[in-house]
Amino acid sequence: MDTIALTCELIKRASVTPNDEGCQQLLGERLAKLGFNLETMVFEDTTNLWARRGTEGPVFCFAGHTDVVPAGAEHAWTYPPFSATQKDGYIYGRGAADMKGSLAAMVVATERFVANHPHHNGSIAFLITSDEEGPFINGTPKVVETLEARNEKIKWCLVGEPSSTKELGDVVKNGRRGSLTGDLTVFGIQGHVAYPHLAENPFHKAAPALAALAQMSWDDGNSSFPPTSFQISNLHAGTGAGNVIPGELQVQFNFRFSTESTADGLKQRVTDLLEQHDLDYSLQWKLNGEPFLTDSGDLVDATVQAIAEHTGRLPELSTAGGTSDGRFIAPTGAQVIELGPVNATIHQVNERVREADLETLTRVYEKVLENLLC
Amino acid sequence: MDTIALTCELIKRASVTPNDEGCQQLLGERLAKLGFNLETMVFEDTTNLWARRGTEGPVFCFAGHTDVVPAGAEHAWTYPPFSATQKDGYIYGRGAADMKGSLAAMVVATERFVANHPHHNGSIAFLITSDEEGPFINGTPKVVETLEARNEKIKWCLVGEPSSTKELGDVVKNGRRGSLTGDLTVFGIQGHVAYPHLAENPFHKAAPALAALAQMSWDDGNSSFPPTSFQISNLHAGTGAGNVIPGELQVQFNFRFSTESTADGLKQRVTDLLEQHDLDYSLQWKLNGEPFLTDSGDLVDATVQAIAEHTGRLPELSTAGGTSDGRFIAPTGAQVIELGPVNATIHQVNERVREADLETLTRVYEKVLENLLC
Ligand SMILES: [Zn+2]
Ligand SMILES: [Zn+2]
Repeated sequence: MDTIALTCELIKRASVTPNDEGCQQLLGERLAKLGFNLETMVFEDTTNLWARRGTEGPVFCFAGHTDVVPAGAEHAWTYPPFSATQKDGYIYGRGAADMKGSLAAMVVATERFVANHPHHNGSIAFLITSDEEGPFINGTPKVVETLEARNEKIKWCLVGEPSSTKELGDVVKNGRRGSLTGDLTVFGIQGHVAYPHLAENPFHKAAPALAALAQMSWDDGNSSFPPTSFQISNLHAGTGAGNVIPGELQVQFNFRFSTESTADGLKQRVTDLLEQHDLDYSLQWKLNGEPFLTDSGDLVDATVQAIAEHTGRLPELSTAGGTSDGRFIAPTGAQVIELGPVNATIHQVNERVREADLETLTRVYEKVLENLLC
Repeated sequence: MDTIALTCELIKRASVTPNDEGCQQLLGERLAKLGFNLETMVFEDTTNLWARRGTEGPVFCFAGHTDVVPAGAEHAWTYPPFSATQKDGYIYGRGAADMKGSLAAMVVATERFVANHPHHNGSIAFLITSDEEGPFINGTPKVVETLEARNEKIKWCLVGEPSSTKELGDVVKNGRRGSLTGDLTVFGIQGHVAYPHLAENPFHKAAPALAALAQMSWDDGNSSFPPTSFQISNLHAGTGAGNVIPGELQVQFNFRFSTESTADGLKQRVTDLLEQHDLDYSLQWKLNGEPFLTDSGDLVDATVQAIAEHTGRLPELSTAGGTSDGRFIAPTGAQVIELGPVNATIHQVNERVREADLETLTRVYEKVLENLLC
């Protein structure tokens, strides 16, 4: 079964997070035939697959996820979201681009590579989770924890996230910004609007501090990262009644931060500013991921060369966009890049992937293996 | 039936807004016996009573409401809220202080006054609604509209709202601040926090303007009114998701304003400030009431004298606190004051009124009639 047929088989399994629906079994059976040793790691509701061919280092790892986001309004789809309809050179379906096409290309590329190079250097591994789109607790983080505990190291990791924007290979992600969320509650004194001297409006007290946070420059970024950005995502105060001064203000905000800032540094600056404004508050932080960057090295070189050879393109190295499971692998010291199909339709209705792109992607992945393990 | 007995009869009628439950009939029957002409004015779900004794001017009017706010958690009451239990010199029950005790005192005072002065000057009127605690649409405003349409003028109006704070007659309300509500929506562009350059956070744009509004001094008030106050009562932005930049910010705010400001002036200042900050917004206004003031005159004199005679107290003239139906009567040119029992328990569980205070209030009301109509 080639990349396109395997992609269709995977799409037909409606593996909405955290369900795997047999996708990992399908992939595992093909890898087992190539001599991969399979380990199924189940944590709570999440099934993960760790597969490895070879016992020597260095370890090259394909990483990806079998889960998909919900299909949303199914009637809005031109073809049913789990039908894997092939039409006009595209495969339609939830997960076609994010990232069942990549998974199929990885497996087929590995089959071809192993056929030609049965005695390759080092090891090839697959780290497949079914919890990437969800709360990222029982997927990649737990697998990485397990590998670290037994000192099993990944040197190079290629994540199949759909990195391309207009054409296959035009963008490779070689890092991601950090993500830090703050949940702030500012306390005042609830009261009736007719008696403002008996109350204290928490928003009135906090407004100058929030305005200052919204306007602050956190850093200037660097050649690999845009400047750190701050966004208030949720804001709430009031009982709904028009004559009540609220007793509390709730604010949720998020930093996407470059390697020019640290999570602790950002926390300190926010706290300093709130203290300056003499607010009565509580603040909980959640660090969703530190920034990571693979700015050069043999993985970047191997990938750029493979893309150039099979597409004629010189990919842009980018750290823009959301987070990915790469953030859990990079801290182990691995080089991490992300390369996958065009992401224009992901998480939308009529998600789709070009069949020709999947063929090319398979050849690029195979070439990356050759560049690193031969 | 004296004031206390009549108060109990009224409390036993569970007349939660906008229901009257026969209270007006009970009052009307007593007034009819004194020669009052009764007009029942029904608007939508609300029953109102306009009663008048005499055809000459000037018209002295007692104004009040038979409706009460809900009892809330009945199990929290020491005595059932509509039982009118008499205990240790108090009558307990929803509406005891706000304002069935006042209604009873008005009727009994009028009975005594008419018995002593059957040929008094001018007219005595009662304007009784059952929609004071509710949306104030079909109560006093519609009755006043009807009277105005036929050019029937009130010269003096005594509203029975519980104005006293610690002891009966310690405070008389001789006006109220205006109340103006604004519903502001600020528009931005929704987006993903990872792509802030593709979005526009409406709160980030609005924060400096809101901070400026919260800190602004609107006027300094005057001898009768505290300075105008601005309070944001409700604030909302965000979908609940932590990674989405909100597309809209909703803000509800309220002015309580003195006679040093006007509703139009406040609107203009808010609009100017929003324009200065170059916001994309929509703004709806609701004028709940213009400020009104009866700072001197024969009604104030008659009331102060009556209180002094029967309590020995010199009442404070105050415009503090919430709105009342006085705001609908004052614009017709009437002098308006509010005098009623101690308001410490109104709208709470175990609402109660001192029996002795109702006896005194009856004498004070009777004396006001004597001071003005003899
Ligand atoms: Zn993905
Ligand atoms: Zn009332």
